[in-house]
Amino acid sequence: MNAEIIAVGTELLMGQIANTNGQFLAQELANLGINVYFQTVVGDNEGRMREALDLARSRAQLIICTGGLGPTQDDLTKDVLAAFLGRSLTMHEPSLTKMTEFFAARGVVMVESNKRQAILLEGSDPLRNDTGLAVGVALTQDGTHYMLLPGPPKEMKPMFLNYGVPWLRSVMTDEVPLVSKMLKFAGIGESGLEHQLLDLIQAQTDPTIAPYAKEGEVAIRLTTRAATREEGLLKIAPVEAEIRRRVGQYVYADRDVTLETAVLEALQASGRTLAVAESCSGGLLSDMLTAVPGASRSFLGGVVCYTNAVKHGLVGVPLDVLEGPNAPGAVSAQTAELLAEGIRARTDADFALSITGVAGPEPSEGKAVGLVYVGVAERGKEAASFQLQLNGNRETIKLRASKSALYQLWRRLSATT
Amino acid sequence: MNAEIIAVGTELLMGQIANTNGQFLAQELANLGINVYFQTVVGDNEGRMREALDLARSRAQLIICTGGLGPTQDDLTKDVLAAFLGRSLTMHEPSLTKMTEFFAARGVVMVESNKRQAILLEGSDPLRNDTGLAVGVALTQDGTHYMLLPGPPKEMKPMFLNYGVPWLRSVMTDEVPLVSKMLKFAGIGESGLEHQLLDLIQAQTDPTIAPYAKEGEVAIRLTTRAATREEGLLKIAPVEAEIRRRVGQYVYADRDVTLETAVLEALQASGRTLAVAESCSGGLLSDMLTAVPGASRSFLGGVVCYTNAVKHGLVGVPLDVLEGPNAPGAVSAQTAELLAEGIRARTDADFALSITGVAGPEPSEGKAVGLVYVGVAERGKEAASFQLQLNGNRETIKLRASKSALYQLWRRLSATT
Repeated sequence: MNAEIIAVGTELLMGQIANTNGQFLAQELANLGINVYFQTVVGDNEGRMREALDLARSRAQLIICTGGLGPTQDDLTKDVLAAFLGRSLTMHEPSLTKMTEFFAARGVVMVESNKRQAILLEGSDPLRNDTGLAVGVALTQDGTHYMLLPGPPKEMKPMFLNYGVPWLRSVMTDEVPLVSKMLKFAGIGESGLEHQLLDLIQAQTDPTIAPYAKEGEVAIRLTTRAATREEGLLKIAPVEAEIRRRVGQYVYADRDVTLETAVLEALQASGRTLAVAESCSGGLLSDMLTAVPGASRSFLGGVVCYTNAVKHGLVGVPLDVLEGPNAPGAVSAQTAELLAEGIRARTDADFALSITGVAGPEPSEGKAVGLVYVGVAERGKEAASFQLQLNGNRETIKLRASKSALYQLWRRLSATT
Repeated sequence: MNAEIIAVGTELLMGQIANTNGQFLAQELANLGINVYFQTVVGDNEGRMREALDLARSRAQLIICTGGLGPTQDDLTKDVLAAFLGRSLTMHEPSLTKMTEFFAARGVVMVESNKRQAILLEGSDPLRNDTGLAVGVALTQDGTHYMLLPGPPKEMKPMFLNYGVPWLRSVMTDEVPLVSKMLKFAGIGESGLEHQLLDLIQAQTDPTIAPYAKEGEVAIRLTTRAATREEGLLKIAPVEAEIRRRVGQYVYADRDVTLETAVLEALQASGRTLAVAESCSGGLLSDMLTAVPGASRSFLGGVVCYTNAVKHGLVGVPLDVLEGPNAPGAVSAQTAELLAEGIRARTDADFALSITGVAGPEPSEGKAVGLVYVGVAERGKEAASFQLQLNGNRETIKLRASKSALYQLWRRLSATT
C-alpha cells in the first residue's frame, strides 16, 4: 500500500512550526510496511487543499491529513474532504457529549464553534481523541482510505497509535509486514561506508540496504518483508554477515541508539564511571551524554576548560606544557593526555575523555582549524591520545570531535568487556 | 512571487529525519515577502522527483529543492533537474579544485564519486558552499526560478542566506523590497507576549507583527514594504514604540541574535569574564556559549558537576549542604549560590552562573521534575539565586534552564552598563 501525508496549516507553510507530524507518521507507516512516496504541506485554503487531495488520490491508496480539525474558521479539513467526496457532515454525539461535559466540569461556557470539533463525515469511523476535543475521521471510498488527524502532536500521536493503526490493520488485510534491522556505525564516514558496500547496495533488492547519515553518525537499515520478525531476520542475516565481514569493526549497535547511549550502557553494564575535560568542544560532549536519561548513573561530570588558566587551575595541566616558546601548547597530544588523566584523577572516575583543538573560525596557537586531539584515560593505565583533522564549521567540528572521543572510548570498552 | 519547496530524500519520507529545512526556508521566504503555498517531500526517485517538479512549475515562479546534491548514487537532484529542463551538466572547476585541495590537504584519496558534488547545470549560477563540498545551483528558465540546495542544514542554511538570498534579490527586480526589524525577548513566554500584544497583532496590517518562538527564545518580526530601509524603519517605528512601552523590559536585542550572543557581547564590551557551574543542564549552557565564535574572549569555562562529589571536589560546595537529612540538598537555592560563587572564585571570573535542578524523567532528592535553581555570582557581591518551575521533557528543561540563567545575567549586565 502507498500512502501520502498531507499536513494542513498555514503556520507550517510560513515556517512558524516544523512538520514533526510528517516525520512521526512517515516513521510509523514505514514500520507498518506502508510506503510513503510524497508528503505535502498546504495552507488552510479550500482550493489548494482540494488540489492536494485530488493529486494524492491519483497516486496513493491511503491519504492521511493532519491539522485543521479545530474549532476556528481556519479549520476546514473535514468540510473540504466532505465536499471532495460528496458526503455530508453529521454530529458525532459521543464526542459532543464529552465536549459538553469537559466545559461544564470547568465551569466554562462552551463557545458554539467548538461543536465543529465533534463533526464526522457521514458513514465514517470516528477516531477517539483521548488528549483533546477534536474527533478524528477514518473512511474508505472507491478503494482509497482517508484518515483525518488533529494537528497538535500531543493529540495526533496517541490518536494514530491507539486508534489509527488498528483501523489501518483492519483494512490492510493482504499486506505482508516489513521487518527491518538497523546497524549503527562510528569511526567511519558515510561516503567511506558506502564505498566499501557499494556493490552490495547496488545489487541488493531484498533485503534493501539503505545508508543514511545524521548528526555525526552513520547508519544502515536492512529491510525485507516477512510474515514474522524471525523469518524476516533470517532473510536479513546473510547480508548483515557480509556487511559485518567488511566493516564490522565500526558497528557499535544493531539498533537505533546514539553512540553516547551505547557508551553509557556499556559503562553501566560494568559499573564504571566517566568524566570529561572539554576545551574546543566547549561542553557539547557533556551535553550529549547528559541528554541520555539515566546518564547520572555513570557520568560524573567534568570541566569545560576554555582557557589555559582553567586547564591548569581546575585540571592540573602544568603551565609549562601549555605556554612558552617550546611548549607543546594547549592543542597537543600531551595536553590531551594530561587533561584526560587530570580530570580522571580529580573525579576518581574509571575513565576520562578529553578534547582539545581548534574549532575555528580562526586558527589558534598557529594551529589550523580542525586540528583536534582526543585523550583517553583509564584507571591504572597510561593515558593515550588520538590526533584528528576534522572538516566543517565550528559547530560541526565540536560535534565530530565529541563523537570521535566517544568512539575511542567505545572501542576501548568493547575490547575489554 | 510564489514559491514551492521540494525536499528530496528517502530519509525524510521514511521519517528518519524531520524536514527542518522546509521550516527554515518557509520562514526566510516569508521574510523576503515570497508566498509559499505548497511544500512537498519526495524520495530519491527520478520519476517522482520529475512529477513534483512538473507540478511545482505549474503553480510557482520559484522552486527550491533541498537535498540530493551529495556524492552517492542516491543523490539525483541535479541530474533530474537537468533532464527536466533539457540542459546538460558541466563540471564547476572552482568547486572541483576546492574539493581536490580539501582531500589532498588531509592526505585522503578522493573517491571518484565525490566529483558529482562539483557539477552544475549548464548555464546555471553556482551557489558557494562554505561549510561543505556540494555546490548549489540557481537558474531561471521560461520565467521560473530554480534553486538547488544541499540537504544537511549546516550546509543549506549558510548557502541560502549568503548566496541564495542575494541571488533571489537580483531576480526579484519588480517587487517593492520588504523591510523588517526583529525584536528578541527573554524572560517572557510566547503566550505571555502574545497576550500583551494581542490587540496590536490582530489590528495591524502594515507593518505586520509576527511572533516567533524557537529554541527557548521568543521574537517578534515587524515587516513592511518600502523603497529604502530608512523609509521602512520610519513606518515600523510607531508600532515598535508601542510594543516597547508594553513589554520593553524583556527586549534584549533588536536584531536576530541569540541571548548567549547578546550576553557575550555585553561582557566583551566591558572586558569582563564569565564561568559556569552546571548540574542539571549538563554542559548545555557551556555548549551554547561556545557555539558563538569568539566566545573565548570572555567565557573561561567551568564545571559540569553531575554528582555531589564533583560539586564538592571541583567547586567546593560543602558536603553538609549537599547531603544529610536536614541539608538543603543539591537542588536548592543555597547550592546554586555556592556553586556560582565557588566557580567564580576558582576561575577568577567577574561573573558566574550556576544551574542545579531536576531535568527528569525521574524526580531527584524527592524534588519534582522541572524544579531548577539558577545562581548568579559577581566579583565583590553576594551571590543571588532564582527558583524556576519549568515544563517539558529533559531536553526542554535543560534548554529553558540555560536560557533562564543567561537571562538573569543579561538583566544584571544591562542594569550595570
